[in-house]
Amino acid sequence: MYRAVVTVKLKKGVLNPEGRTILRALNFLGYKEVKDVNTFKCIELFIEDEDRDKVMKRVEEMCKKLLTNPVIHDYEIELEKLD
Amino acid sequence: MYRAVVTVKLKKGVLNPEGRTILRALNFLGYKEVKDVNTFKCIELFIEDEDRDKVMKRVEEMCKKLLTNPVIHDYEIELEKLD
Repeated sequence: MYRAVVTVKLKKGVLNPEGRTILRALNFLGYKEVKDVNTFKCIELFIEDEDRDKVMKRVEEMCKKLLTNPVIHDYEIELEKLD
Repeated sequence: MYRAVVTVKLKKGVLNPEGRTILRALNFLGYKEVKDVNTFKCIELFIEDEDRDKVMKRVEEMCKKLLTNPVIHDYEIELEKLD
């Protein structure tokens, strides 16, 4: 069993309106020390397989087919073996 | 300057319809080895301050006031000093 965490971030240059909204709200609430905010999403997958290379390859495929939009997203995959 | 990453997860027992939908879609696409999916959100804050304890305290406050909903969310804060 593997635990995979896919971190999906917007590419540099793509506007993040959610982050911008949080930044404005925090500044408005008095947290003036906050200078920038980004948000990103993580997807945690539990995968029943013992072959690390195969798991990595399949998760890459899932990212391309379903989990991310390659036009606007960058992604990173972390794998962790579970007992 | 500090970089703070706030990870916001649903509490145990709170349904995650997004994760459930991704799980079904992956299984449908042939990725039968995927047994469970969770999603969570990360908020990355850039904070102009040099006092680590103060930054931590302020980010905790932000979590309680704006960034999370304590009824359904758990959160973790990671701080990293930037040069």
